[in-house]
Amino acid sequence: MENNIHLPKTNFGKLQEYLREFVYGGIDGAVTTFAVVAGGFGANLNPGILIILGLANLLADGFSMSVGAYLSAKSEGDNFGKHEKIEYWEIENLPEMEREEIATIYRKKGFKGELLENIVNHICSDKDLWVAEMMKDELGMMRDSKSPFKIGLATLISFVLVGFIPLMVYLYDFFFPTDLNIFLWTSILTGLAFMIVGWLKGIVNQTSKLRSVSETLGLGLLAAVVAFYVGDLLESFFM
Amino acid sequence: MENNIHLPKTNFGKLQEYLREFVYGGIDGAVTTFAVVAGGFGANLNPGILIILGLANLLADGFSMSVGAYLSAKSEGDNFGKHEKIEYWEIENLPEMEREEIATIYRKKGFKGELLENIVNHICSDKDLWVAEMMKDELGMMRDSKSPFKIGLATLISFVLVGFIPLMVYLYDFFFPTDLNIFLWTSILTGLAFMIVGWLKGIVNQTSKLRSVSETLGLGLLAAVVAFYVGDLLESFFM
Repeated sequence: MENNIHLPKTNFGKLQEYLREFVYGGIDGAVTTFAVVAGGFGANLNPGILIILGLANLLADGFSMSVGAYLSAKSEGDNFGKHEKIEYWEIENLPEMEREEIATIYRKKGFKGELLENIVNHICSDKDLWVAEMMKDELGMMRDSKSPFKIGLATLISFVLVGFIPLMVYLYDFFFPTDLNIFLWTSILTGLAFMIVGWLKGIVNQTSKLRSVSETLGLGLLAAVVAFYVGDLLESFFM
Repeated sequence: MENNIHLPKTNFGKLQEYLREFVYGGIDGAVTTFAVVAGGFGANLNPGILIILGLANLLADGFSMSVGAYLSAKSEGDNFGKHEKIEYWEIENLPEMEREEIATIYRKKGFKGELLENIVNHICSDKDLWVAEMMKDELGMMRDSKSPFKIGLATLISFVLVGFIPLMVYLYDFFFPTDLNIFLWTSILTGLAFMIVGWLKGIVNQTSKLRSVSETLGLGLLAAVVAFYVGDLLESFFM
């Protein structure tokens, strides 16, 4: 599900390859726990309940999202392999048909006559090239070089790390009671996290940093406002 | 972020195009609310609390996920457009360099001599073709024909619809109290939902239906078990 754009060089080194997973996993994690906290705050629930359900959701969603990301990347790779096998079988067993498909691809690019004939001859003289052309131009499939396991791991780590941020102030206050407005401080801290992740998202998507930061902050705010009002509205009804 | 595999024809008609969003949105939605329910059940929380936080999470996560999916698809389209513009600028202003890049692409496919020369001449005589070749072969970028708005909408609808399933029995029992084991019935209903979505996921990913159904059911179960035990463990500590 990734596009294969070559990212601009930055100083994230090898980590950069999985920055996309880190960014999207982190946003999902923070939205999930912040929604529990904001919904519970809206419904005037006991902070202990928010900590329990926040942590339960953080770990449950984190595991299932990252296993899901692993499985999805794996099935995409399997699918590429399956179609590649089919293409090898077809050029072995239906060479005329597959030759005509290569001709069609290049005819669409405007090649014709002897030049078209020579191109098709060359491609069909090398089975690996022949299959590679079919995969890309007939099926529109490109191989993703990323490891499904590392995709899952990057998702898990960022989901749990960033998703833990909306729970930190609640946990701190539980163990060391303070006079702070814990929901306010949670919102500030979570807002900062959304801004940092949004800035990284700008790098991943090669878009304007300002736009990316404000979009991500807006998303988090939207989730919190919706959760707060749903909690507030339903409190009198279901409690 | 989608691959462009042509899906096998089924009778889902135009909806089929957005089946991938429906599947992944649905799984995310059901995992999120089922985690709230299972965590709350593990911690022996009042069903009213589970309904409030389940609905708050369902709507908050549903909105932010679908807006996030819309933005991500949009920025990918924008990014494609930006790079396309750069390529048009480059063939206009640095034609020799860009011509050499086309030659390099075809040299890698084993073409040489006069044939290579003729191919490069043909491609560089048509600016749209020239840019299209650079986009695909140099940058590895393919245009996604799906509408970002419909991607967001499909995600929202499936997230909310499928995510509502783990809350249905709790809501029913709240308004019409029964003697049923509501957590058991919720688990059965949610399990069925995971199986149906898993079957659809098999269509989307072109993998074995049995494997896809069991993977998706396993993911949901993993989330529920983790949430239940976290809730159970933390209850005595935070309440």
